[in-house]
Amino acid sequence: MASTTLYRRARLATLAENDGGLGLVADGAVLVRDGRIAFAGPARDLPAEAAAAAEPVDCAGRLVTPGLIDCHTHLVHGGERSNEFEMRLEGVAYEDIARAGGGILSSVKATRAATDEELLRSALTRLDRLIAEGVTTVEVKSGYGLDLATEARMLRAARHLGKVRNVGIRTSFLGAHALPPEARGDKDAYSRLVADAMLPALASEGLVDAVDGFCEGIAFSPGQIARVFDAARGLGLPVKLHADQLSDLGGAALAAGYGALSADHLEHCSDAGAAALARAGTVAVMLPGACYFLRETHRPPVEAFRRHGTRMAVATDYNPGTSPMTSLLMAANMAATLFRLTVAECLAGITREAARALGLLHETGTLEAGKWADLAVWDVERPAELVCRMGSAPLHRRIRHGIPA
Amino acid sequence: MASTTLYRRARLATLAENDGGLGLVADGAVLVRDGRIAFAGPARDLPAEAAAAAEPVDCAGRLVTPGLIDCHTHLVHGGERSNEFEMRLEGVAYEDIARAGGGILSSVKATRAATDEELLRSALTRLDRLIAEGVTTVEVKSGYGLDLATEARMLRAARHLGKVRNVGIRTSFLGAHALPPEARGDKDAYSRLVADAMLPALASEGLVDAVDGFCEGIAFSPGQIARVFDAARGLGLPVKLHADQLSDLGGAALAAGYGALSADHLEHCSDAGAAALARAGTVAVMLPGACYFLRETHRPPVEAFRRHGTRMAVATDYNPGTSPMTSLLMAANMAATLFRLTVAECLAGITREAARALGLLHETGTLEAGKWADLAVWDVERPAELVCRMGSAPLHRRIRHGIPA
Ligand SMILES: [Zn+2]
Ligand SMILES: [Zn+2]
Repeated sequence: MASTTLYRRARLATLAENDGGLGLVADGAVLVRDGRIAFAGPARDLPAEAAAAAEPVDCAGRLVTPGLIDCHTHLVHGGERSNEFEMRLEGVAYEDIARAGGGILSSVKATRAATDEELLRSALTRLDRLIAEGVTTVEVKSGYGLDLATEARMLRAARHLGKVRNVGIRTSFLGAHALPPEARGDKDAYSRLVADAMLPALASEGLVDAVDGFCEGIAFSPGQIARVFDAARGLGLPVKLHADQLSDLGGAALAAGYGALSADHLEHCSDAGAAALARAGTVAVMLPGACYFLRETHRPPVEAFRRHGTRMAVATDYNPGTSPMTSLLMAANMAATLFRLTVAECLAGITREAARALGLLHETGTLEAGKWADLAVWDVERPAELVCRMGSAPLHRRIRHGIPA
Repeated sequence: MASTTLYRRARLATLAENDGGLGLVADGAVLVRDGRIAFAGPARDLPAEAAAAAEPVDCAGRLVTPGLIDCHTHLVHGGERSNEFEMRLEGVAYEDIARAGGGILSSVKATRAATDEELLRSALTRLDRLIAEGVTTVEVKSGYGLDLATEARMLRAARHLGKVRNVGIRTSFLGAHALPPEARGDKDAYSRLVADAMLPALASEGLVDAVDGFCEGIAFSPGQIARVFDAARGLGLPVKLHADQLSDLGGAALAAGYGALSADHLEHCSDAGAAALARAGTVAVMLPGACYFLRETHRPPVEAFRRHGTRMAVATDYNPGTSPMTSLLMAANMAATLFRLTVAECLAGITREAARALGLLHETGTLEAGKWADLAVWDVERPAELVCRMGSAPLHRRIRHGIPA
């Protein structure tokens, strides 16, 4: 492979911000040098000498977008929870499932029992599904360990995914996901353990790109989350939050107050919460897979997000219990169908805004000179097909950091 | 390949009727001779001499089910309609989309304009998605031609799919899908044309396995459908019906009255309609993809189907306008999530009951001796995972008529 490659005869959707829409370029070209985009735009604007020196790749009129970014997943875990799905369909109540050992703690038990090899292998199967759909960057959370050793194993497995596949991995430490059984109901003590012991240890090992939490009645209170976020701030780590999914605890405002990269779920986010996110530049991450799977009736306040100028991303929230979904395009379809995001909002949500939600907008998420050459080449006539279709895989080629794979 | 093959060390879900559930066999074997199942059941019941003569295939404990069957698709068509999806999301009303040339007639226009090669190539891309998910039989409807020449081209393209892929194709003639523009609003005259001219011509060419219709206010009346069904009866062809999707016109009872193979959609089916289907042995085909995509609030009367003993199948209803879905497992997930079918109902719905809806239950749809060896081998721990997961592709191997592919 030449160190300079020219993707020519391409229709581009650059998703560049200043364009306002998809940044469509009918006869476009992308010049890639040393893994980065040297030029992306109309072929007529390409400097002739630069083009002449590059190895050409004919896109034959195909659509080229930024590589897709799944900015919220729980990809690493042991076990699976289709039994709970089955029980719910047979009319068993949530409480009975929980009493039978179901819920997040079922995944904690299975994850603690899994070997490193098992964690890696099962996550790879899921990662390969995302990759097959043009995903070039994936966020992976811990949170099924809930003790230092297992949280570390999860994060190391996540990091390892990026070594065995040509994909960018961002890790989020989600110690404040649920209360482990050994905490015996003491959420305060456990959240102190997360903040004061687990986080510093994991951060010192370089395993933590961001710190996440689950702020909810069934999880942790705003005060307990604040303790964890204070510790993150002390370590110079960005934060994100599972916020306002099942009830409005002011999670969006809490996240915004910490300048969080993102607040995620937000089905019960208030108008004030939406405004706070916009002011803080915190991305609202839509997770329609969980909303669909749990048959929730509340929807995130998309109109408020638009009115306030809150950024919106879309992610799979892949997890074994409430969103066993390994298709980011299906998540985009659900964001459109269920939440009424437009096609442009959906496509920005799985590229540019997803990059922003990971603090990576300077590096990826749009086709702009200077960024990593993370591209997806598609066999579609119109960008809307990527969102409209269900279960199709129109990916022709995926390029990450200039490397086709 | 030996003409006798033994799939051993398999967990089976035979879906055999007498079992009542999934027909699970923990340590199972499937003996395949000359493309047909010679034995399927517990390994201990396998005759030793038969086993000894066969070429063994180690399933390593994997789950083996009947090959999946998608019993309702509109897989062959020209063009695509993501523009309508996009317009609806931007708030354009259905009527305005129709006035702008959208809807079924948009696909009719594109299909008439498409070459045979284009019809085949685009359908193959979609068919390959179904095949990658373990589908071994697919029903394909006409209905975007609405004139003899184009309906014939669609059905020939459908037949051809079965020649270039290792998959069973069943064709349904859906001339009574919509009114073509040249009919100038005369539904009576057009339905006579369908019944008296188009159907006999297509049937004489051997292109019609079943005759379908769309009974709805926006399509054809029960009387017009009856005219087409009478013609089918005269030719000895089975019928099926798009019934009670948007309103209750008594479509289920109409279909039952003709002993139809299936009545499909049924969101507005009455209790009497459900009972009539059960009495006639007509399968109720659930199409949750269209229900989801169109954001319909009515659900098929699943409880009534259960109470009356109506058979339930599940299909993608792949079509470019209202269900652009090429994942039968996602359709099953939606049947569970949106319609509350149990896992066993979903899995029977995409195997045994789908075979029944095509009149093929004597040949495929379960793992029973004498039937074609149409199998899917899965990398899952539990059958429920096939329904629970979204966007995964846990297919390990697919076998049709004994031939792996
Ligand atoms: Zn999550
Ligand atoms: Zn249909």
